[in-house]
Amino acid sequence: MIEKFIRDVPDFPKPGIVFKDITPLLQSEEGLRHTIERLAEVVDPDSYDLVCGIESRGFIFGTALARHVDKGFIPIRKPGKLPWKTAAESYELEYGTDTIEIHTDACEGRRVLMVDDLLATGGTMQAGLKLVRRVGGEPVACAFVLELGFLPGREKLGAIPVHALLRVE
Amino acid sequence: MIEKFIRDVPDFPKPGIVFKDITPLLQSEEGLRHTIERLAEVVDPDSYDLVCGIESRGFIFGTALARHVDKGFIPIRKPGKLPWKTAAESYELEYGTDTIEIHTDACEGRRVLMVDDLLATGGTMQAGLKLVRRVGGEPVACAFVLELGFLPGREKLGAIPVHALLRVE
Repeated sequence: MIEKFIRDVPDFPKPGIVFKDITPLLQSEEGLRHTIERLAEVVDPDSYDLVCGIESRGFIFGTALARHVDKGFIPIRKPGKLPWKTAAESYELEYGTDTIEIHTDACEGRRVLMVDDLLATGGTMQAGLKLVRRVGGEPVACAFVLELGFLPGREKLGAIPVHALLRVE
Repeated sequence: MIEKFIRDVPDFPKPGIVFKDITPLLQSEEGLRHTIERLAEVVDPDSYDLVCGIESRGFIFGTALARHVDKGFIPIRKPGKLPWKTAAESYELEYGTDTIEIHTDACEGRRVLMVDDLLATGGTMQAGLKLVRRVGGEPVACAFVLELGFLPGREKLGAIPVHALLRVE
């Protein structure tokens, strides 16, 4: 069901890469409904208090899920975007590093479901998990729409349960 | 109700500006629920087919609303992020210009509700409206959570109905 709404775009963002375009999935009310309902099934909403998404595509599924299961949402953002006191974490990219931030009062003492569209190398989510823990939150699971099964992203995330609605080999 | 969840952060992003921080509103399930229910009230969901949000804070309320009213969602993104064929529009900032893009197959022949968190100068939304029309969509209304009433943003958007849940003077 999800698969039929994913568009393969060859040579994006660079030659040799086949990009998994999720915009047809979002554009379809059936696709978006099904995806969010599945995310609400793979992790019991009673097991978490808040949904966390990482800028910017994590915002898309994270907030839709939060509203669907009647939870609050906490954003992890790129540097300099969050106006209050923040904690920051850097992680390695293919070339260079990137940094993400969280508000220090985002989730202290709360159970947090981490949501993103894509599990690839896992570097971004690994940094997100560190941030949530550093500000006193307890990540209970990670849920992705897509997982690139040919990359070792899952291994980077440690012992936390990791769910993906669709695994691409 | 919404007002009590907005945090004023003085001198962000620069001295003299009081930033309206929406993260407490998102973090509260009550705040997020109320906001999305109000967005679903101010524009009749029968009057539109798709919800459009502009990267990245427009993704937050846009997708939550789309799921809430069982519609699809279309993202307008920063340059180079959308993998398929795109249309682009540039607009003026205080210093310099910025550009946003939409997929050319995002909304042809569809009625579109435009959603963003904040109406300030209106430049971003004005560019977003142009993009939706250029790819054959029909924007039916703009809905914002917050409007800065001391800025002339509303005037930039033309004859389209503009709704804001909270107007800050």
